[in-house]
Amino acid sequence: MGDGSYVFTLEKRGYVKAGKFTPEAACEHPDAVRQLAREFARAGADVTQTFTYGSTEGKLEGCSFSAEEINEAACDIARGVARESGTLVAGGITQTKAYTYQQVKDKALVQKEILHNAEVLIKNKVDFIILEYFRNLEEMEWALEVLSACGLPLLASLCIGPRGDSAGILPGECAVRMARAGAVAVGANCLFDPFINLSVLAMMKESLVEAGLDVHLMAQPLGFRTPDGGRYGYCDVPEFPYALEPRTVTRWEVRKWAREAYSLGVRYIGGCCGFEPYHIRAIAEELSPERGRLPEGSDKSDHDLSLMRKICDSYTGKKDVETMYGSAKCCPNYWKDMQPSTGRPKSSACSTVPDPEFPASF
Amino acid sequence: MGDGSYVFTLEKRGYVKAGKFTPEAACEHPDAVRQLAREFARAGADVTQTFTYGSTEGKLEGCSFSAEEINEAACDIARGVARESGTLVAGGITQTKAYTYQQVKDKALVQKEILHNAEVLIKNKVDFIILEYFRNLEEMEWALEVLSACGLPLLASLCIGPRGDSAGILPGECAVRMARAGAVAVGANCLFDPFINLSVLAMMKESLVEAGLDVHLMAQPLGFRTPDGGRYGYCDVPEFPYALEPRTVTRWEVRKWAREAYSLGVRYIGGCCGFEPYHIRAIAEELSPERGRLPEGSDKSDHDLSLMRKICDSYTGKKDVETMYGSAKCCPNYWKDMQPSTGRPKSSACSTVPDPEFPASF
Amino acid sequence: MGDGSYVFTLEKRGYVKAGKFTPEAACEHPDAVRQLAREFARAGADVTQTFTYGSTEGKLEGCSFSAEEINEAACDIARGVARESGTLVAGGITQTKAYTYQQVKDKALVQKEILHNAEVLIKNKVDFIILEYFRNLEEMEWALEVLSACGLPLLASLCIGPRGDSAGILPGECAVRMARAGAVAVGANCLFDPFINLSVLAMMKESLVEAGLDVHLMAQPLGFRTPDGGRYGYCDVPEFPYALEPRTVTRWEVRKWAREAYSLGVRYIGGCCGFEPYHIRAIAEELSPERGRLPEGSDKSDHDLSLMRKICDSYTGKKDVETMYGSAKCCPNYWKDMQPSTGRPKSSACSTVPDPEFPASF
Amino acid sequence: MGDGSYVFTLEKRGYVKAGKFTPEAACEHPDAVRQLAREFARAGADVTQTFTYGSTEGKLEGCSFSAEEINEAACDIARGVARESGTLVAGGITQTKAYTYQQVKDKALVQKEILHNAEVLIKNKVDFIILEYFRNLEEMEWALEVLSACGLPLLASLCIGPRGDSAGILPGECAVRMARAGAVAVGANCLFDPFINLSVLAMMKESLVEAGLDVHLMAQPLGFRTPDGGRYGYCDVPEFPYALEPRTVTRWEVRKWAREAYSLGVRYIGGCCGFEPYHIRAIAEELSPERGRLPEGSDKSDHDLSLMRKICDSYTGKKDVETMYGSAKCCPNYWKDMQPSTGRPKSSACSTVPDPEFPASF
Repeated sequence: MGDGSYVFTLEKRGYVKAGKFTPEAACEHPDAVRQLAREFARAGADVTQTFTYGSTEGKLEGCSFSAEEINEAACDIARGVARESGTLVAGGITQTKAYTYQQVKDKALVQKEILHNAEVLIKNKVDFIILEYFRNLEEMEWALEVLSACGLPLLASLCIGPRGDSAGILPGECAVRMARAGAVAVGANCLFDPFINLSVLAMMKESLVEAGLDVHLMAQPLGFRTPDGGRYGYCDVPEFPYALEPRTVTRWEVRKWAREAYSLGVRYIGGCCGFEPYHIRAIAEELSPERGRLPEGSDKSDHDLSLMRKICDSYTGKKDVETMYGSAKCCPNYWKDMQPSTGRPKSSACSTVPDPEFPASF
Repeated sequence: MGDGSYVFTLEKRGYVKAGKFTPEAACEHPDAVRQLAREFARAGADVTQTFTYGSTEGKLEGCSFSAEEINEAACDIARGVARESGTLVAGGITQTKAYTYQQVKDKALVQKEILHNAEVLIKNKVDFIILEYFRNLEEMEWALEVLSACGLPLLASLCIGPRGDSAGILPGECAVRMARAGAVAVGANCLFDPFINLSVLAMMKESLVEAGLDVHLMAQPLGFRTPDGGRYGYCDVPEFPYALEPRTVTRWEVRKWAREAYSLGVRYIGGCCGFEPYHIRAIAEELSPERGRLPEGSDKSDHDLSLMRKICDSYTGKKDVETMYGSAKCCPNYWKDMQPSTGRPKSSACSTVPDPEFPASF
Repeated sequence: MGDGSYVFTLEKRGYVKAGKFTPEAACEHPDAVRQLAREFARAGADVTQTFTYGSTEGKLEGCSFSAEEINEAACDIARGVARESGTLVAGGITQTKAYTYQQVKDKALVQKEILHNAEVLIKNKVDFIILEYFRNLEEMEWALEVLSACGLPLLASLCIGPRGDSAGILPGECAVRMARAGAVAVGANCLFDPFINLSVLAMMKESLVEAGLDVHLMAQPLGFRTPDGGRYGYCDVPEFPYALEPRTVTRWEVRKWAREAYSLGVRYIGGCCGFEPYHIRAIAEELSPERGRLPEGSDKSDHDLSLMRKICDSYTGKKDVETMYGSAKCCPNYWKDMQPSTGRPKSSACSTVPDPEFPASF
Repeated sequence: MGDGSYVFTLEKRGYVKAGKFTPEAACEHPDAVRQLAREFARAGADVTQTFTYGSTEGKLEGCSFSAEEINEAACDIARGVARESGTLVAGGITQTKAYTYQQVKDKALVQKEILHNAEVLIKNKVDFIILEYFRNLEEMEWALEVLSACGLPLLASLCIGPRGDSAGILPGECAVRMARAGAVAVGANCLFDPFINLSVLAMMKESLVEAGLDVHLMAQPLGFRTPDGGRYGYCDVPEFPYALEPRTVTRWEVRKWAREAYSLGVRYIGGCCGFEPYHIRAIAEELSPERGRLPEGSDKSDHDLSLMRKICDSYTGKKDVETMYGSAKCCPNYWKDMQPSTGRPKSSACSTVPDPEFPASF
């Protein structure tokens, strides 16, 4: 089980700049980052990922720290928390500046950048590497190739939806080619709604099975409901990035999703932007029968609704509080099937995303 | 400017039990509580409130710490953060067990309980006392009376809506009587939507002006949109307490509200359940012209949308990213007027609250 | 029991010009008008109103018929249908050109116009006169005064909401003054949602009772749900006038409203714009216990859901059709409590009406 | 261009029994049926269809008229209106009792029933026959086969969605096989949202092109928005059949759809349940450039928004009416892009349809 979102969660706490989403907090406010990493561990994460999202030279404009310094600090924090809590350390590498900003993609340059960023991780003895938030299969293949010699397990996760990567290569083919390029686990992270992410994983699984490839599936979707997202998923909705709150997944939506992901065969389950500690805990709680235990943090969680039942019982017959604590609220399905309201009569359920590839008439 | 929500925010972080909402984390996980207090200070809060919500003997069933121990620990944390960051310490006292659970209200018992809880605060030299989350004017008056001798400024805040306290005493009368009972500031906190809270404050102000009373107004509303709440505000909506996410206020809704509150004359502005550090920062940013400064935490905030403007400019003409970064997003009004979507086509904007006193036909 | 909407219903049928809403169809397509009048009678209306809405010289620009010709034709149609079906004929008079378009209101001119329009009705021996769709109490008082000598019962209905007439005179005072000016029934029609209309009627009733006046109450509200209307009710919503369909009341919402209206003491119950024959039938069906009979048209209505029950029973156990005909659909409350969907995920429940007098923050 | 809905429209007028939806009004209230047929002709329909929906022995339980009598009367009415207005008469035949209610489908029985119903039409010299509201390709093929000898053009329309007919045969194959069975036009009618209907037609077109078959496409979709329908389309939504109003298409949604249908190559364009005369007129107005004329009924239609423009201009600067008549309302796109509100804050945009084949997590 993976952990959750550093960038978005620390933004709400005041340590990451909204809109920029860079990880210099590892240097500037290590206590705040460490606190969050501990919360994820306490919530049941088996992995502590280094807070190195987007940390590559040339993508950190205006930071007073270099990518190397940030990555070093991030490794320190992750290692420390892992030691305390028994988690594994995942070194995170995201898409390169070389691939993103160059018109002509220079394989050597991309691989050099990947290797450079990996060195800090390897030196810090991370347990494995997650290549994530890549939008292009080609770049991912180059990364897998250049890292194949490092001796560490490589997990490969694209930030794609059902329409595939930037070049239009569909999820199934992406999965097969990432597996063939050496990834021990393949999947998708970020940008898309958890349930859209599931449909991507289903496509990946089908192609892997067809190709007779036996790798793990991993899912770290967005923590927001965005059925109306566009090519870039939630980046295309009008609420991005400063008014996404109403789209935040509930703990029970997470449980529903985690159960479906597990049933599909996904075995690395975590979250990306929007997943806070209580969301990660919800995964651990939903899968506690399979994992054989509850996470430490469940001592503060009404995961089985037993507290709710106690409250409801105590209020039965007290007319003025019955509406808040009706017995329906004691059933998991009440929460799993809930379609929660925004409390905003003027807001629509979905937004109009001006995506020219989408049917106009939905 | 006040700070935000400890109970709800720490629940999401895994340190407060959902449904129970008691503050034993001050003893169990002081680092986590301290971290949050620091975040509020960094966000611009002038006050650090002790995390003593609901901490009174007999309301802590199942805790391994006594109310005294918790209150002591909470004072330590608040004092420490205040020292670092220059905030004032507010000692918090909430409604008593004696008043809440007894059929016949025993004034002596209530006052004894209030005094007992206040002693720890006074001993720890808090700068002032906030009496909050009282549902009954009567209990509040008793509390103000018994604390009048303590020498500390008393701020009095009821958790009421426009229909008044439990006994039906309207907000205007509540404000006048709290002022006459010695409160230096009066207002309303929790349970109700920020904009409903404003209407309560407006009623209070009108009566205070009529009565010729000159006390401050304070507002610490709920961080959720709940126009459809009932007598107990958000407690009555079907989403309470495990699916409130879509109702969470955005930073720009907070700014809109803070501006309206300031215009109404409210001078103690903070938040209750649902207000996270970035919400508090939004208050400080909205009122920065009046305060003459931005909070420390604004170094990580795109409060004036200048970063957004820079991004939009850089993307102009790049068709595939124009939908995410259209120039409209650079205007504060885009965000202030936004009616954000839930991303859930099956959810209604408001819930059906079975409140018998409400008109059936809304 | 009154009848329903001619203007809006005939617009949908192709005989009234959208946006203009004038009644020349009485001359141009008398068969179409007659057919609709028959449908209302068949639906249970006790009254056939002349289709003379807005028919006054100077408001008919571009028509090839004069107001007199139209009014004459409308009387013929109404009289014919009344003869067939036993209804009473109500002559309708709406607000004057003289009052609407003149800056300085000239009482003599207004009264002359009213009298002129009334003459055709009186000559055609209508059973009583309904003065309706007046926005100003003053104009209504002048009309009642000048018609007091005609010997016919006068019913007076303003198109106002809870904020009163154009001059801000509240519904209660309006009712009292209309009663004192000689109206045998007073009330409100058009512009506002049925349930807002009810609140207006409630205000009227209270003042009439206080004043010791014993006149009937009449209600002919809008057939659209517009809680978000402005000063001019539904005219202020963005959907007016070409996209109001999703706001159309259902037959069961009409029944709910009719029941509440009856309970409030309203005894002239009909509908205005948006009320089609099946809506009028729903009133008659809801009030059939009080009226002692069902309307003729109920032979084609599943008013008691007995047909639905039969269908449901026949499908029980047939899994593929159970979702359409589940047993819940056999209960009146299923339909009365239904919150029907638009089927448009991008539409909001309410619109943003830019009414400067409305609170900005709803 | 086809006409619109008889059953649903006459239900609202009080002549068809809700829930039963049988056409005995042709005998009982011929004037009401004739009036509606005239309205469709006036709205621009080139075709007057006989009101014979569902009229087959054994599906008329409780009627005091036989299918033959009804069909005869329906032909009389259609022929009369066609003579007046120059339309063609389409004889309508819908699915058989023999196929619907028998477990084992008996081809001879089905064909006998079809032939029997066709005889009245043929005797009455209809211009062509529309076989519509068939849920099964097999039954349709049998019908086409048995009618092939009658010498009349046969148009074949299934009431299917993208998932195909009852047996799961996809739209493309259905179209090809209906064309091969002798239909001169093939398409889909009823049950599904206009825009879902379009996707069905697109699938049909693709297969026809592939198969090199040159037949016309015809579309007569539902007049309700039901993206959330199930296997049986709108029959599966909770609002069916007594609370569908909020789903009614607007005239501008119809225009948008008609334009897309025409662009796709559909040449027989009409409407099914929910399409009222003004909807049919909207098709004729949208396609007036192609048709070279406006329908007669456009004399009462603000189809080019010129009246709206005149009104807006006259109100410019009058602040109190500017919200109703802002200049935006003069643009067709204002109306085409409108996402109209229900005016019901507690209603969701879409319903929860318990269709086991649908993904649980939309």
